[in-house]
Amino acid sequence: MGSEKSGINSNNKSVVVLSKLATNEQHGENSPYFDGWKAYDNDPFHLVNNPDGVIQMGLAENQLSVDLVEKWIKRNPKASICTNEGIESFRTIANFQDYHGLPQFTAAIAKFMGKIRRGKVKFDPERVVMAGGATGANETLIFCLADPGDAFLVPAPYYPGFNRDLRWRTGVQLLPISCKSSNNFKITIEAVKETYQKAQEANIKVKGLILTNPCNPLGTVLDRDTLINLLTFTDQHNIHLVCDEIYAATVFDAPQFVSIAEIINDDDGIGINKDLIHIVSSLSKDMGFPGFRVGIVYSFNDEVVNCARKMSSFGLVSTQTQHLLASMLSDDEFVEEFLVESAKRLRKRHEKFTGGLEKVGIKCLKSNAGVYCWMDLRPLLKEETVDAEVALWKMIIKDVKLNVSPGSSFNCPDAGWFRVCFANIDEQTVDIALARIQTFVDAKKQQQWKRNNLRLNLSNRKYDENVMTLNMMSPNSLIPRSPPQLLYMY
Amino acid sequence: MGSEKSGINSNNKSVVVLSKLATNEQHGENSPYFDGWKAYDNDPFHLVNNPDGVIQMGLAENQLSVDLVEKWIKRNPKASICTNEGIESFRTIANFQDYHGLPQFTAAIAKFMGKIRRGKVKFDPERVVMAGGATGANETLIFCLADPGDAFLVPAPYYPGFNRDLRWRTGVQLLPISCKSSNNFKITIEAVKETYQKAQEANIKVKGLILTNPCNPLGTVLDRDTLINLLTFTDQHNIHLVCDEIYAATVFDAPQFVSIAEIINDDDGIGINKDLIHIVSSLSKDMGFPGFRVGIVYSFNDEVVNCARKMSSFGLVSTQTQHLLASMLSDDEFVEEFLVESAKRLRKRHEKFTGGLEKVGIKCLKSNAGVYCWMDLRPLLKEETVDAEVALWKMIIKDVKLNVSPGSSFNCPDAGWFRVCFANIDEQTVDIALARIQTFVDAKKQQQWKRNNLRLNLSNRKYDENVMTLNMMSPNSLIPRSPPQLLYMY
Repeated sequence: MGSEKSGINSNNKSVVVLSKLATNEQHGENSPYFDGWKAYDNDPFHLVNNPDGVIQMGLAENQLSVDLVEKWIKRNPKASICTNEGIESFRTIANFQDYHGLPQFTAAIAKFMGKIRRGKVKFDPERVVMAGGATGANETLIFCLADPGDAFLVPAPYYPGFNRDLRWRTGVQLLPISCKSSNNFKITIEAVKETYQKAQEANIKVKGLILTNPCNPLGTVLDRDTLINLLTFTDQHNIHLVCDEIYAATVFDAPQFVSIAEIINDDDGIGINKDLIHIVSSLSKDMGFPGFRVGIVYSFNDEVVNCARKMSSFGLVSTQTQHLLASMLSDDEFVEEFLVESAKRLRKRHEKFTGGLEKVGIKCLKSNAGVYCWMDLRPLLKEETVDAEVALWKMIIKDVKLNVSPGSSFNCPDAGWFRVCFANIDEQTVDIALARIQTFVDAKKQQQWKRNNLRLNLSNRKYDENVMTLNMMSPNSLIPRSPPQLLYMY
Repeated sequence: MGSEKSGINSNNKSVVVLSKLATNEQHGENSPYFDGWKAYDNDPFHLVNNPDGVIQMGLAENQLSVDLVEKWIKRNPKASICTNEGIESFRTIANFQDYHGLPQFTAAIAKFMGKIRRGKVKFDPERVVMAGGATGANETLIFCLADPGDAFLVPAPYYPGFNRDLRWRTGVQLLPISCKSSNNFKITIEAVKETYQKAQEANIKVKGLILTNPCNPLGTVLDRDTLINLLTFTDQHNIHLVCDEIYAATVFDAPQFVSIAEIINDDDGIGINKDLIHIVSSLSKDMGFPGFRVGIVYSFNDEVVNCARKMSSFGLVSTQTQHLLASMLSDDEFVEEFLVESAKRLRKRHEKFTGGLEKVGIKCLKSNAGVYCWMDLRPLLKEETVDAEVALWKMIIKDVKLNVSPGSSFNCPDAGWFRVCFANIDEQTVDIALARIQTFVDAKKQQQWKRNNLRLNLSNRKYDENVMTLNMMSPNSLIPRSPPQLLYMY
């Protein structure tokens, strides 16, 4: 905030108490996790100008295929209202303000949504409601579905932005469903029931369940059986099922992504109440356009479509952007090529990065989607607590100079996991990041080796624990720069 | 809403009651004033294809100077990320997602805001908060300032969209301050005090006063003294002053526009609490870009800036649009030329239209801003009631085939006034609209003349009343197509 340069001082009047601010202050810049961003902002890595700076691996961006988009734009000057070829549309487009959106835009979005679900479902353009990014879409949807004080169940770990998007304005609560690393973070129906039951006992009105599929931060997709079980649960309890599918087009490997739209499409006549089912979509991750603020609420409930459409007046997509994307996303050939190539590049990058981690003995949760991996650093923790995780995280930022995201910021019930984004940086930077991690792990192992040797003299029990821990960490690892003793020991 | 094509029926489950919907249903498509829009949509005027269709004069758009913008765009291909010259910025811009906005954008907006206030005030880019159009900006601001149930005073007639923008999401109430035609709709401090007093008596918490300056629908600007009086009132009562200045650049004639920013800038050291003062700005009217959804919250209160900035995540402006406008609005030469030429064209159009109306005996409130005039059709009312106004309005839509907006839709306390927009249509369409109005007025006069002749035989009192009414209507008019008797009579 810049200093006030105008004349009047306000020191002799009591400032009117501003509602909402107190509750909002706990988020964003005052979050304990803001340090990582500050560290990056103060000392951002640059290959040439600042090779020792902090590498940004906390940003879930999909930048691997922007060149394909750039080429398309060059080939299609008429798609823009700011080219000689397209300017004749400027007047109409700049003036267009219907909150239903440009018909060609909603049609293209509906088509695109179908395509990234392998054409197994058709989406109705009249149910496509615009919002300001997934942030705005999630917020709008929850506003339509719930009253302040109501609650939604959310499997944890979950995207920390949900605390902002789903709670700030709406006043709803999020009740985390605990997903444990011992079970590869799978959502069990038992855990869902347990959280629901606890809410009932606490007299909290549960309005729905929110699923992120593909999952952020896990990078996994929900299998058909899990989806059916969860849908059956919400349907039986007459609560909403919100499916955040904003990473749908980032699935780069088997198993295939199954959209909730596909499940209810297949389920012909069983009697699932479609009025309770809602999808959130976006182009921020799928296409890599977070700046364009394209979020979509797609509901199977007419009343929700109606309500969200009215609320969408507060966060419509710029018609300049609608117009461009309408052309781009209705170009079948381009979209198909983009989706195939983007998945290919994400897979390659994922393999490179997780492969590099494996070489230094770091495992990630097996994943097939997203622009990040879920890295298991439990073997490097002093103890399995959030404090130890945060301490390790601060060390990674300070010493390794990587801005990664600790699991506790995702409400992860188990300490020691970190989300590391790999699609917002270039290949060379990935190599540098991996080299830094290697150096760090080597040093940690040396420390641990020293401690172990010391402990060996004190207690055999301690020694056994450490053997176990490091076994978990790198069963098949080759650690060339580690001291030879370590290679023998584990 | 399209029919549901997918398989599952939801008829055997009770639909979960959706909050908010009931209260929202009273607006928009269910409004009694929706008829005018429907009439236009069903039968839109086109010079060649549908010359007998409904002319849209209900849309407050500023389309008179788009050609200047188009020329600028052609001259500045680098300003767009979708041209060969500008595509190198595509990657960075499409990925940019900081809710502070592109620094060059907020800087350009601050500069533009200063320029349209004749350089008398400097605006701080760090106080410029983005929102989805004026709609989003107003809503965000009220959310930051008030709790559900709180109230804001609003001089009436006021922009009907306020009922949506300021109330829907926030749950606040609007308390109209009655401005009467007998006083040329001036806001008197007595009327403000009266409304405030009534609210106090009803135990309603008044959080602030909302001013629209220049006024929609009046097309007038607030003079310095009125602004100072109103500011003194809000300051003394420790309530907020929200100034919606989205028509600032549409002032086309004397007196000059005075921004609240100028008042508090001049008022050095008196001790007005600046923390209570907030401005809403936009490019929808000033530049004619409603589709680009650029709304601005500019507050002198750090906490409000902070809160609004966080809320802005739900309605950021597309970075594609930010990037374009950053270039355009920081081009001093262009902006100055645009502002001068736009005002000139608005003045010319206003003169043409109001002059045309005068010729058929219709007067408008004297105005010097906006893209509409406030037309006095009281002489054509059967009686001075809202019902008679709505009846006349329906006649205008059906018979004259003009979609204009009745005063009652603006909460106008006096019946018989209509807002007519003149800057969203071309010159030829204005001529046709004027000719239609002339035919209509002629017919009405003939009817009235017949009624008068009839009444003459019945009552002299009635006759006097009608003479008075028609005198008010057209004191200096030449009405060539009226029956000669009328010319003699008035």
